[in-house]
Amino acid sequence: MTGLDLPLTPLRFLERSAAVFPDRLAAIDGDRRLTYADLATHVTRLAQAVRASGVRPGDRVAYLASNSSELLAAHFAIPLAGNVLVAINTRLAPPEIQYICDHAEARLLLVDSTHLRRVQLQRKDFRTVTEVIELPDGTAPIVNGATAYASLLDRGSDEALSWEVADETATITINYTSGTTGRPKGVMYTHRGAYLNALNQIVHNGFTSDTRYLWTLPMFHCNGWCHPWAVTAAAGVHVCLRAVRADAMWQSIDDHGVTHLSGAPVVLSTLTSAEQAHPLQRALTITTAGAPPSPAIIKKVRSLGSTVNHVYGLTETYGPYSICEVQHDWEGLDAEDQSALLARQGVGMLCSDEMRVVRTDTEPGHPLVDVRPDGTEMGEIVMRGNIVMKGYHLDPELTSQAFSGGWFHSGDLGVRHADGYVQLFDRAKDVIISGGENISSVEVEQALMSHPGVEDAAVVGVPDDTWGERPKAFVVANADVTSTELIAHVKSRIAAYKTPRDVEIVTAIPKTSTGKTLKTALRADEWRDSTARIQG
Amino acid sequence: MTGLDLPLTPLRFLERSAAVFPDRLAAIDGDRRLTYADLATHVTRLAQAVRASGVRPGDRVAYLASNSSELLAAHFAIPLAGNVLVAINTRLAPPEIQYICDHAEARLLLVDSTHLRRVQLQRKDFRTVTEVIELPDGTAPIVNGATAYASLLDRGSDEALSWEVADETATITINYTSGTTGRPKGVMYTHRGAYLNALNQIVHNGFTSDTRYLWTLPMFHCNGWCHPWAVTAAAGVHVCLRAVRADAMWQSIDDHGVTHLSGAPVVLSTLTSAEQAHPLQRALTITTAGAPPSPAIIKKVRSLGSTVNHVYGLTETYGPYSICEVQHDWEGLDAEDQSALLARQGVGMLCSDEMRVVRTDTEPGHPLVDVRPDGTEMGEIVMRGNIVMKGYHLDPELTSQAFSGGWFHSGDLGVRHADGYVQLFDRAKDVIISGGENISSVEVEQALMSHPGVEDAAVVGVPDDTWGERPKAFVVANADVTSTELIAHVKSRIAAYKTPRDVEIVTAIPKTSTGKTLKTALRADEWRDSTARIQG
Repeated sequence: MTGLDLPLTPLRFLERSAAVFPDRLAAIDGDRRLTYADLATHVTRLAQAVRASGVRPGDRVAYLASNSSELLAAHFAIPLAGNVLVAINTRLAPPEIQYICDHAEARLLLVDSTHLRRVQLQRKDFRTVTEVIELPDGTAPIVNGATAYASLLDRGSDEALSWEVADETATITINYTSGTTGRPKGVMYTHRGAYLNALNQIVHNGFTSDTRYLWTLPMFHCNGWCHPWAVTAAAGVHVCLRAVRADAMWQSIDDHGVTHLSGAPVVLSTLTSAEQAHPLQRALTITTAGAPPSPAIIKKVRSLGSTVNHVYGLTETYGPYSICEVQHDWEGLDAEDQSALLARQGVGMLCSDEMRVVRTDTEPGHPLVDVRPDGTEMGEIVMRGNIVMKGYHLDPELTSQAFSGGWFHSGDLGVRHADGYVQLFDRAKDVIISGGENISSVEVEQALMSHPGVEDAAVVGVPDDTWGERPKAFVVANADVTSTELIAHVKSRIAAYKTPRDVEIVTAIPKTSTGKTLKTALRADEWRDSTARIQG
Repeated sequence: MTGLDLPLTPLRFLERSAAVFPDRLAAIDGDRRLTYADLATHVTRLAQAVRASGVRPGDRVAYLASNSSELLAAHFAIPLAGNVLVAINTRLAPPEIQYICDHAEARLLLVDSTHLRRVQLQRKDFRTVTEVIELPDGTAPIVNGATAYASLLDRGSDEALSWEVADETATITINYTSGTTGRPKGVMYTHRGAYLNALNQIVHNGFTSDTRYLWTLPMFHCNGWCHPWAVTAAAGVHVCLRAVRADAMWQSIDDHGVTHLSGAPVVLSTLTSAEQAHPLQRALTITTAGAPPSPAIIKKVRSLGSTVNHVYGLTETYGPYSICEVQHDWEGLDAEDQSALLARQGVGMLCSDEMRVVRTDTEPGHPLVDVRPDGTEMGEIVMRGNIVMKGYHLDPELTSQAFSGGWFHSGDLGVRHADGYVQLFDRAKDVIISGGENISSVEVEQALMSHPGVEDAAVVGVPDDTWGERPKAFVVANADVTSTELIAHVKSRIAAYKTPRDVEIVTAIPKTSTGKTLKTALRADEWRDSTARIQG
């Protein structure tokens, strides 16, 4: 920067929207309505209250909260106070919550009434939290050893704080993510990265001041893909939603004229399978990630009059880093071919850098080598630049390992197609190795999901005396489909050695709170009686 | 930045569009069509050619060219080569062109055939230009002492260059702007500023991959408001237009499905008054600046089915820094009230900082003091941040003077309204001082233009024995309107002392090439016989 440049920060977005559109609706949260002036006032008071609570500059402040105007406000207030926001997944168990607070050295912990009792059970073990504050969430308040949110706010004032920051590379939030093994890692986001990814989201979702964004995505998940900042920048309306249930989603869509929502394919599935589902009155853009949307889901969503965006990223990339950009000439293709193209993770967004797929056999210290862009050679997906984290909190070793060769290593395996689009074939840990051959479980799942009768599918490796491991499929079917029929369908599309011998029809597939399939659970059941575990 | 961040540069935008949308149309230039792959290829070859021409890193390369795919390519190729683009106004006289090239120490000068003869007449006086290259523009080539563009390109190669830059605060272009007095000043833009203002333009114009942008704005004017980079980032289509004539504009709109264009109100006037004018087949957004659009023009533009954006900025602010954001509740107002609100310069854009109006009587070294937000107290418009220039080339003194108090002083006078919107009342030099009272010529012009019969108006100070100076109006009328009628109309709207005694009906008002009224010309005529000149 030159001396005259201003550091980039998403705080500027609220400053501007509150100044330019003070009377415009910023948030709908149950029966409450906040204008942008209200939101800025709340944010200022909360920031002043945090400052008045013995929290030092740069200290972490943790939240255990569902989607609410309070958690939205926290995305601005905590950095405005000069602190770092740690929004924790509400599905975690008390020991995990305690671990995260301890690791982040959080001073304050703000908790929804609903989750307070669980936290209080573990309260004595928290090492750095000096005060727990109860966030009212509509359920009966507890306030037993916790400070009421209103009392916290009373410590604050309405005196304006500067929205400017001194250093755009300062940490704005830390998001904890579970690795394959070991303890959660604290992913550090910067003001600069949050600002630029918010712009990414505005451009690629088409957020404008007419946007009404339904919060089906948890705000604690990668800071809601930077959408708290992006929708605020656009001066759109945040429609808060605490529980992603079909009835609540449809009511919000109908009552509040929702124009955008985001979530894993399971959210799309919930939406389209609901008894309330009906053709939409206005354009609705649904952005999905976490798993490629199946042709059946895409078809259903489109039949309601909605558009599907497919994006990809990780906690380490501020949420979405890439988008499957739709090409004009795809319009001429039939629905299945379009869906197959749209199932790919695509290309880096405008403010991201490119997305590469590199060989996994490169020696450390050597330059990364791209795989052939032939849709076949598998490699690891790597990313870099402003939309990639600053690093893991308090873990320089793991950080430097993750950035080997100057690029962030996602651990996800995929291919690059001839048109440059990247397709994820497997989370690295989910590769099935059968007779020495790598099988991508995603590839098998996609083969299954290309059948019109398949609603959802998951494939894991199960023990096999001959091959060590072989793929087994779990399928949620929406018609009278038999296993035999599905096996024949898959075999007609991919190699025989990849085709599962067992296809189990189930009523639901276990998912994480963010919609990723819990393959570990499926696998555990299958491996229970096995003596050996293939190295994956 | 952290070590892992990438420097911001608009070069990334072409890199991305060429990689993701290689076959998409990038530019229409006469009979020529360039895809994004073609554009990137041209850019790479040109950059290599510049490097092979004895130009050192950081050296300036000047262009004297109208809107063409070559000048578009130069916005990427010159920085890609590691050099600085200086795009010169083609209306300038040879000595002015020579002054700019000398001051910028330009090594190469690329000139449209049309302008080559004028340059060659002055050729011997150029102190730093080592080579003049002729850009084919459809007129008869000259090639007398100049290198053919094709020969220059032959020196290059298709070997890829890295689109990355080492320092985002490095200068990407220098734009020369004429001050009120003295020689043109060289305004330095950075990669960071160009990147962020391009994002501003995408967001506020709504550029998408469906955009077809008609180049009615000269690319040499503030680098075409950063639109060469913005439209490329959106992977839209650049429709090049060398001459802003009504027939050519309408033909482009009809043949190429233009969705956006920009220009001074005179461009809107040309468009709407054309015999070819007809209701539009698709949405067209027209962004105007340089002077507030009159209610009559806004009404005409809207009647064709088009939307008007009003933006404001200077060469020193990368073109548009602010926008008159339209509030939802303006929709209920009548056309005249809406137009009055839309005539204001508004508020800082999303990636800009705020726009302030400060008192002009503050002592140097003291903090700037805002005027009252009452729509009445006049002050100077000041701006800062990433969308403000790095400084004046080779003029640290003038730079530090322009940034007195940490904000860029525009020299423009205006007010802040109660809703925070800034309204420009006068370019500082255009204040009319009559009997000690400041009269804003813009205010008088707007009063005139609120009459439905007025197409265009300009007001200047003329000598007056009693008051020293008094306003005189020049009006282009589109109906049977008399001076008496207009004087009565103005007197009904603003103070009597501000009302011109003379209203001269003329057929046209002299304009600069960028559409600003040439008040000096009007004033010169009026002051020819006067012995005294009031201090302004």
